[in-house]
Amino acid sequence: MAVEEETLAVPAHQHEDHPGHKKLVIIAWGGELDRVWPQMILATTGAAMGMDTTIFFTFWGLMALVKDNKRITGDNWMQKMMAMMDRPGIDHLKLGQMNFVGAGPAMMKKLAKDHSVASPGELLQLAVDLGVKLVPCQMTMDLLGLKREDMIDGISEPAGATTMLMEGQDAITLFI
Amino acid sequence: MAVEEETLAVPAHQHEDHPGHKKLVIIAWGGELDRVWPQMILATTGAAMGMDTTIFFTFWGLMALVKDNKRITGDNWMQKMMAMMDRPGIDHLKLGQMNFVGAGPAMMKKLAKDHSVASPGELLQLAVDLGVKLVPCQMTMDLLGLKREDMIDGISEPAGATTMLMEGQDAITLFI
Amino acid sequence: MAVEEETLAVPAHQHEDHPGHKKLVIIAWGGELDRVWPQMILATTGAAMGMDTTIFFTFWGLMALVKDNKRITGDNWMQKMMAMMDRPGIDHLKLGQMNFVGAGPAMMKKLAKDHSVASPGELLQLAVDLGVKLVPCQMTMDLLGLKREDMIDGISEPAGATTMLMEGQDAITLFI
Repeated sequence: MAVEEETLAVPAHQHEDHPGHKKLVIIAWGGELDRVWPQMILATTGAAMGMDTTIFFTFWGLMALVKDNKRITGDNWMQKMMAMMDRPGIDHLKLGQMNFVGAGPAMMKKLAKDHSVASPGELLQLAVDLGVKLVPCQMTMDLLGLKREDMIDGISEPAGATTMLMEGQDAITLFI
Repeated sequence: MAVEEETLAVPAHQHEDHPGHKKLVIIAWGGELDRVWPQMILATTGAAMGMDTTIFFTFWGLMALVKDNKRITGDNWMQKMMAMMDRPGIDHLKLGQMNFVGAGPAMMKKLAKDHSVASPGELLQLAVDLGVKLVPCQMTMDLLGLKREDMIDGISEPAGATTMLMEGQDAITLFI
Repeated sequence: MAVEEETLAVPAHQHEDHPGHKKLVIIAWGGELDRVWPQMILATTGAAMGMDTTIFFTFWGLMALVKDNKRITGDNWMQKMMAMMDRPGIDHLKLGQMNFVGAGPAMMKKLAKDHSVASPGELLQLAVDLGVKLVPCQMTMDLLGLKREDMIDGISEPAGATTMLMEGQDAITLFI
């Protein structure tokens, strides 16, 4: 499981040259709205502050990077399972086991709009624009039978736990 | 979303003077008993060890800082939602999706008492006494229409993700 | 709650001698399959990379270290609660609130096997073999009335939050 991987790590001297310029590595594990929001808000804030920021999308979190129009129609049982899933893509997230102030995702999004908080989809695009590295977990992709072309544009090459831990050296690391 | 904020960051030299004296930053995201307990136990333990400790309360976690007698009666839809919510405040927490050894919160609290583990409310007071910085998330407050006077005493000024990430430099950071 | 404990901390110079050789500390809080997997995959990957790796098992996470044949039959109410619990042990985990691609744990395990991803039980054994320190949380053990002999072999002495925070100095720390 710890295969040889291309490292994304920043050279050590870069950190020393900019002692106040830390890295931020977010392991985006959760796939519901109440986790995707903090994943995206922290990542875009970090990037806007000049932090070298990476989001590693794994498990449920990977769904945010799957193309919206991806409807799997294959014939093995795993793909059938996928076809029964709710639509992937960051614009179709559920809210999590508790409802935020009793509100569903639609209300939550309206609330956010009224208060000028960007939607997850907008934050994902902002993350791309700000140079956040969006790295899909290779193992999760393999488990789900997802290929590079099933994923949205603007993301990095798939990688694994080794890359993530290399990247996490001298970084603020958060499992969300 | 990354607004100009007052920073809570400790001057860099302070860390260098006390190389073994690290900072601890807990992002208190969850609002159920099984998450509030580790938030509070880790924060009070860190402070007792002399660590410069901050809890940043966001999303569900913010509820721990809302006054117990806060019953919103306003007339916009969002406030109506709030009024339907379970009572906020740290003494009225649910236990989370799994029941710990099948026990509800009341049993869990009895169990904790029998074994001399402090309750979340006691731990919150202890955190204040030990000088833990309790920082409510400004964005979550805005979303919920909460004002400074709706929050319990002894907490810091509301702040946002920028402040949290500044504070997280050279700290142990945990998203709980 | 912050009792005097034996520290597991690595001497400071060890980190300086191997500046690229970081520590990894995982707080294994969750007990369901979708959290145990990342706990185990990250820990074994870290250890395989030469990182000094510790998993601190607390709350729901502790169940992974409880012997499979441990059926509590005592007569206080707490033990009766335990007796009603699902079987502890890492081979009997549930999948969490969402089903991964609609699949239950058995399907998930088959899927993992088909793709050569080790099971949690195999990963736990691998962690032992790789020298990962597996530390059960003393407070959780006390709450559940568990003794050292109720836990699987190959694990470290129980410890508490103080030890965990000492160990987390200069480490990548993840709350999973």
